[in-house]
Amino acid sequence: MWHLYQFPLCPFSRKVRLMLAEKGVAHELRRVSPWLQDDDFADLNPAGETPVLVEESKGVVLIDSLAICEYFEETLDKAPLIPGTASNRAEVRRLVSWFDGRMHHEVVAPLMEERMKKRLISRAPPDTTELRKAMTAANGHLDYIDYLLDHRRWLAGPALTLADLAAAAQLSVADYLGGVDWRGHKQTADWYAVMKSRPAFRPLLAERMEVIQPPAHYDKVDF
Amino acid sequence: MWHLYQFPLCPFSRKVRLMLAEKGVAHELRRVSPWLQDDDFADLNPAGETPVLVEESKGVVLIDSLAICEYFEETLDKAPLIPGTASNRAEVRRLVSWFDGRMHHEVVAPLMEERMKKRLISRAPPDTTELRKAMTAANGHLDYIDYLLDHRRWLAGPALTLADLAAAAQLSVADYLGGVDWRGHKQTADWYAVMKSRPAFRPLLAERMEVIQPPAHYDKVDF
Repeated sequence: MWHLYQFPLCPFSRKVRLMLAEKGVAHELRRVSPWLQDDDFADLNPAGETPVLVEESKGVVLIDSLAICEYFEETLDKAPLIPGTASNRAEVRRLVSWFDGRMHHEVVAPLMEERMKKRLISRAPPDTTELRKAMTAANGHLDYIDYLLDHRRWLAGPALTLADLAAAAQLSVADYLGGVDWRGHKQTADWYAVMKSRPAFRPLLAERMEVIQPPAHYDKVDF
Repeated sequence: MWHLYQFPLCPFSRKVRLMLAEKGVAHELRRVSPWLQDDDFADLNPAGETPVLVEESKGVVLIDSLAICEYFEETLDKAPLIPGTASNRAEVRRLVSWFDGRMHHEVVAPLMEERMKKRLISRAPPDTTELRKAMTAANGHLDYIDYLLDHRRWLAGPALTLADLAAAAQLSVADYLGGVDWRGHKQTADWYAVMKSRPAFRPLLAERMEVIQPPAHYDKVDF
């Protein structure tokens, strides 16, 4: 049995959970709070970051969300999420890197810092300038997703891919933290409604952090 | 013919150049300065970041250094750089992510900001506190590479992999910018000497930025 060390609002944990569910890989969740500096977890992953996926009986430890996704892409034939030609696959990976890198850095990381970590760790109020910057950046990212969806059925082409999971994972955390204004982004909202309605996504959307509640529309498919 | 849009001190461009040279892929370099906001380059890559690899006659545009490396891993049999079992390959990708993510963020990005961008763009002096933090972080990364090399011949195992290229690419930029103190890191220095002596690495080490010169040991195999 695989055990996934993860944190509910970690977008990279969410991407891996969506991937495992889409591919039908049985796993149990183990919750880790990365900022608590858990020694056992640091022994598992020197980077101290979620997600880590472990199969104890086989001695397999997989670290880094993209490395985990590529592992299952290589070892399972079912439900390929990096499909197509080498060029198609490069486009999926470009977009995964865009959402995991750029969107995380500009939108999700600052929202987590201001709305979650400050509340849980330093008990400081959020910096409204940083929040405003993150929400403006979120709007730019929605514009880009609108643009992609003007040309394609899914973000990387005609089929659902890891790019859709990566984008939905980042967006869902931003949305939980109240950082997304959906007005004027019908294409992206329609695509996200379809993502939300997938069985893989439902358990994620049902989870709540103790001290931070999402906006009312967060888990609604029709929002 | 492939054209690589790159910047000499971009560690991700360097990783791709090392990969192309190790695999023997003919290519021409096109220099881009990412901070100049070149419109043609922005049309090519919305992220505005190097490297981008283009094969105009085939209409192929590859963006993101890892996506580029995976593309050639899939399309060429020669000189695999993500070799072995799925677990071996996951370990290579974990380390590539570590060097491209963590080492870049903690060491190379701040050195480039303080020692290069401030000089070229704002003509401001470097912030010595930031420089000291980056150099301390560099020392920690060398400790980790020492540790890996205590257990393995190359960084990810018994063979040269993309992890070695990623680490050497980041380290070479940090070293150019005077951010690496090699004392007390014999394992890493010996490994880096071997990397430097590879034909793939020589052209990179011979290049100079106009306004910033590297330390005397920078291109010496015996340093």
